[in-house]
Formats: sequence, C-alpha cells, structure tokens
Amino acid sequence: MLTKTRLFTPGPTLLPEQIRLAMARDMIHHRTAAFAALMREVQAGLRLLFDSEDVVLPLASSGTGAMAAAACALFSPGEKVLVVEGGKFGERWTQICRAHGLLPVVLPVPWGEAVSPAAVAGALDQDPGISGVLIQHAETSTGVQHPVEAVAAVTRSRPVLLVVDGVSAVSITPCPMTRWGLDCLLTGSQKGLMLPPGLALIALSPRAWARAETLPARNFYFNLCAERKYCLGGQSAFTPPVSLIVGLAESLRLFGEAGLATVYRKQWALTALVRGGVKALGLDLFVKEHFAWGVTSILLPEGISSGPLLARAAERYGVIMAAGQDAFKERMVRIGHMGWLDYADLLAALHALAGSFRFCGGYCGGRNYLEQALDAYWTALDEGPPLPV
Amino acid sequence: MLTKTRLFTPGPTLLPEQIRLAMARDMIHHRTAAFAALMREVQAGLRLLFDSEDVVLPLASSGTGAMAAAACALFSPGEKVLVVEGGKFGERWTQICRAHGLLPVVLPVPWGEAVSPAAVAGALDQDPGISGVLIQHAETSTGVQHPVEAVAAVTRSRPVLLVVDGVSAVSITPCPMTRWGLDCLLTGSQKGLMLPPGLALIALSPRAWARAETLPARNFYFNLCAERKYCLGGQSAFTPPVSLIVGLAESLRLFGEAGLATVYRKQWALTALVRGGVKALGLDLFVKEHFAWGVTSILLPEGISSGPLLARAAERYGVIMAAGQDAFKERMVRIGHMGWLDYADLLAALHALAGSFRFCGGYCGGRNYLEQALDAYWTALDEGPPLPV
Repeated sequence: MLTKTRLFTPGPTLLPEQIRLAMARDMIHHRTAAFAALMREVQAGLRLLFDSEDVVLPLASSGTGAMAAAACALFSPGEKVLVVEGGKFGERWTQICRAHGLLPVVLPVPWGEAVSPAAVAGALDQDPGISGVLIQHAETSTGVQHPVEAVAAVTRSRPVLLVVDGVSAVSITPCPMTRWGLDCLLTGSQKGLMLPPGLALIALSPRAWARAETLPARNFYFNLCAERKYCLGGQSAFTPPVSLIVGLAESLRLFGEAGLATVYRKQWALTALVRGGVKALGLDLFVKEHFAWGVTSILLPEGISSGPLLARAAERYGVIMAAGQDAFKERMVRIGHMGWLDYADLLAALHALAGSFRFCGGYCGGRNYLEQALDAYWTALDEGPPLPV
Repeated sequence: MLTKTRLFTPGPTLLPEQIRLAMARDMIHHRTAAFAALMREVQAGLRLLFDSEDVVLPLASSGTGAMAAAACALFSPGEKVLVVEGGKFGERWTQICRAHGLLPVVLPVPWGEAVSPAAVAGALDQDPGISGVLIQHAETSTGVQHPVEAVAAVTRSRPVLLVVDGVSAVSITPCPMTRWGLDCLLTGSQKGLMLPPGLALIALSPRAWARAETLPARNFYFNLCAERKYCLGGQSAFTPPVSLIVGLAESLRLFGEAGLATVYRKQWALTALVRGGVKALGLDLFVKEHFAWGVTSILLPEGISSGPLLARAAERYGVIMAAGQDAFKERMVRIGHMGWLDYADLLAALHALAGSFRFCGGYCGGRNYLEQALDAYWTALDEGPPLPV
C-alpha cells in the first residue's frame, strides 16, 4: 500500500500497459492466416530494428537458447572461435562452445572494461584458424558496452563471422547489423523489447546464412535453416509463443510511433540520469568509460554488502535492483534502466540506493543528488547520444 | 515513449492493477446470489471505512448525485439549513438546496481557510430554525480540510443534522461517522477509493434515518429509504454499476490488508512530501493550516498562469495536474495526491511543477527541493499523523 513495486532488474523489466493488454487478448491459433499476417508485420518491424537484410527468426527460448543456436548453426565441431570474455555472459559463450564441440580461444577482458578492437585483430592475426568472434554488445553482468562497431570493422574484411549477443542491447542502444557488418545478432524478449521472457530473436547476415546452409543441422529444435523457411511463410517450425508474438507486434508498434531515434535517446538519457545520480552520491561507478545504456553497476565499498542493501531497498522503497554476479555478487548493485520505466521511476531507484546504502552503514554524499541526476537527464535528452553511435 | 503519464488530478486518480484486473473480469448479473454475497462483503468493508452503524448505500451516480440525494432525503422544502461555503463544493451545497426548495443560510468562509466551529455554533444559536449543517470535509477546490470533528461536537447535541461531503476525504483522512457523530457521510468512487468515477456511497446515522423515514420520498431514483431495504438484502433498487462494485470489493480488500491506519498514514506522508517540496521551492501554499490530505493547492505569483504551466507539465514531464477553479482558475495549480500513487510519482509532480514554473518565466528556489520533500515524507511516515486525527 505504501509504495508501488518497481523493477530495476536488467530483465525482466516493467511492461507497458498496451503490451500487457495485447497479450491478454484471446488466444489465436498459429497455423492460420491471421497469425501469418501478424508474423509479417512483426518481420517488417524486426528487420528495421535489427537493420537486417534477411529474416529475424523468433524462437521459443531464452536468449541463451539463441546463443546456442547461433554457435551450432555457424560453426562445426573442432572449429576455433574467439570469445571475448569480459563477464558472466562472455563466459557463457565459452561454455556453449565447449558444450557443442567448438574450440573457444578466450580473449580475457577484465570485468568492467571493454574489449580493445586491436586485441581482437591481434588474436585473429595470430591464429588464422579462427573463424568466428563471439561477443556481447552489452555485458549485463558488468554494465560494459563493447565497441561492436569497431570490432566489426576488424571481422568484416576477414573470413571471420562476428556473432553478437545483443540481449541487453537490441532496442536499447543502436546495433545496426548491416550498417556495421555484424554476421549474427540475437536478443531476448525481456529487456529493451518490454516483453515477458520466453522469446528469443536471431538474425544472420547473408554470408552467415551462406555458411549455415553448408553445415549439417546439429539440432532438431534450434534449426535456423528450417526456421527460416517457415518464417518466410509467416510461420515457425514449432509452436511459437503466440502471446509473446502478439506482444512483440505491439512493442514494435510503440517503437514505430516513437521512432527508434527517440527510443535510443531515451535510453541514453536514462543512463545519464543514473550515472549522474550515482556520481553525485559519491558512489563508485564500476564502468568508467564504455558503459551500457540499459544497466548501470555500482561497486560497493568494503563492509557494505549487496544482500541487506537490496533487501532494504525492496522493503522500504519498493525498489527491486540486482546484485552483482559471481565474484561481484556481494560487492555490486546493478540498476537496470531498460523496459517500461522513465525518469521518475529512476528517482525512486536512486533514492532507494542512497537510503539503503546509509541504512547499511555507508556514508554517501550529500544533498542534491536527485537534482543533479535530473540535470544530467535533461541535458542528455536534449543533446541526444553522441553521433555516430 | 519518453515518459509515463501520471495523473495528479484530485480525482479521477491512477488505479492499482488489482482493481483494474478485477474490473476486467467477466460480467455477473446483479439479481443473483453471487452479487448479493459481493454486496455483503462490500457492506462489511464500508461500514468499517465509514464507521457507520447502518448500511452504506451504493448509488450509480457521481458524488454530486449523493449530495442531492442527502439534501432531499433529510430536509423538506422550506426548511433552513446552514451551508459552510468556502469553495466551489460549498457553493454546490447551496445550489443543491436552492434547486430542491430548501432555504440555505450561507456561512461564508474565505477560500483557503477552514470554517470556525464557533462560527457554526453562533449561526445555529442565532437561528434555531436551522435543522441541518452541510459541509465538505475536504474542499477539493481549495485544498482545505474543515474541522468536521469539532463541527460535529456543535451539532450532535442539537436537533441539527450534520451532512458531510466526504468526496475528497473518505479513505484519505479519518472521517469516523459514529465516533465523531456525523449524520450523513457521502463520497465518490474516483478519489481515495482508487476506482473509476460512476459510483457514490452514502451513509446515514440512526437519527438521520429516523428523520428520513418520516419524510415523503421526493425522488424516484435517489430514494435512500428504498435503497436501504434493497441493500439489506444484498441488492440495489436499480441496476448497480456492477464492475465498480467488483472493483470496490477489491479496493476494500486492499485497505483491509494494509489496515486503515496505514492508508491514512500514507496520505499524511504524501501531503507532507508535496508541501515540503513546494515550500523548498519557495512557492506559495494556498492553505496554511487546515490542509487536506489528498490535494495541495499552490497559488501562482502575478504573471504566471496555470494554463501554459499545466500544458508544459503534461507535454514534457507526463504530469497531469489541475488548475484552480472559478476565480482561481489561472492563479492556482492543484496537485492531487490521492489514489494509486506513491512518493516516487510525486517526485515527478514536484519536478514538473518546478520545471514548468521556470519554463513559464517564474523564479523558484533552488536546489535540493526533492530531497527536502523526501525528508518531510519519511519523517511524516515514520511519525504518523497527529492523534487524535
């Protein structure tokens, strides 16, 4: 009764009412003309969002399912791929490669830092046997945004496929496949798309499709070539998550009405708001430079642990934030600022962060942090993100 | 896309999801045992909320309908009643009395001030022919809260019925009929009850019922004695607004879970937040002392007009506030803080107020207003309202 509950987790996110109501509509069957028409509408929106020359396939899975599908569709057992490993989801690429018989060559990047495109080029030069680079656009576990455009400048002139996990990036930060020359881009529904979890989306470049067509199918379920044939007919190989597709159509309509530039501008400004507030509080932003536009991580000082801090934030302020992951679990708080939230919601997050930090015995700087955060927000919103993004 | 839209109007208000979902359930028919059971559940909750010894009647009407119903049920044409007229809704009592042949004796109170109980006593002493006092608990047009408890101390020892318009008060501020000795209390659904408009509720004291039973019915529709008979059987005389009753049951369940003390404490604290923020901005609180707990009015300085200010607040901040009424239309902004909103929503309202005020050329004091507002909120929340309230 006292407070609303607000999700600031880096997925799932709060959802707009239009999408929730769309998903509450009566069920339709997927082997119908009505569903095919919906799929075609969704395809048009997704191609624009992904900047893809080909279909963007929906899969009934989490984002991890699409990662595994990509690895199996594009590489053969025994093939070497370079994995940019700068966080938990970089490590997931390595695990997926191992599980499916690929040979991951790990390019380690300290948590909190972005990969250097020169290091990627160096690794590829050193081993011409490497035929792919697997990377995150936004590393959800650290709040880093890797310079995918610059990495693509390294891969696209080589016989090396660049596979991008865009789970915390697509519709949060620009990630244009064709313009940048990405070979595979995938995402999940529960982040920038403002949908519940359960739907993954994946697109391949023409040269990636060419590669995929030459390889024998390694999965019955995640068979991208088969999915592509169905998709061109407005269908999917297996039963699709119908309500999520209905919600996706609504989500893409919302993006269409607002314009993608506005969507990215908003994310840029919300990031500025959170970073501005955290700085004004004198807390430690984990990512100094290459920060993601959908999640901000804060390193806690010695003696303050994320567990009690997050419990206090939830109980007193209705604010649900995330801890760090693995080694940073207790040392980090992550504020997700993706999905259906706005500047006012994020004031609650900052207020809860400050109040809970103090409650746990921390000292954080004084007054005026909300106004400083708002100043940063309006400045960023009015100026827009740096171009080219 | 950039901002959510938040209603800070003094009714209708934002509604909780539980209530919206309850109202979206499939329709039920009202002449059924299921509806009667619902009505009985609602009665139990309403009697507690109103502190009523008798039924609390639902009427398919706005709050004004219930005001007219009360005037007609309790007084005869030619009868004199004292009207406390300190705002637009005080004036409405006078208009209703005139429309139905009563003789209103107006006790004028300057807008922004509360009536003096001594003045009520004086007026009654001066004219023993007055048989009722009509008053607002909260005067929505000004943001004043009249001292209804003290007024009831004047009326309850006399043969004078005290009729209270609790439209902006019931479930916002304590208003216990029996404990204070009110003879009639009424409200509308679109304020503290967190429901859409369209439902009014009205309760009478035993002596008011005794009076009502002696008078001939003056309305076919607003016939409280007939409604009471139906209500005791779990029904209503005419088709009730079924979905609103379903929503009301949900609203009363939410109050029951939280406890009424918590509901009032929250309203008290939200009022402190808004008043604290407005003070920190150096703006002019219209009501100095006897302020309502659900709406705060701000007097604008010469040269700043509410129209453009409210338009800016809506367009840039997604914040919908209200203008003043009548002579104060352009000179006043009213922030409603009732219904389903919390401290974080109200930060948006204060930020929009400050930003739009500056946009319109006004100067308002500087930094730190959000933190000062929050300090006031938490202090008020932790301390609770002054007792007895």
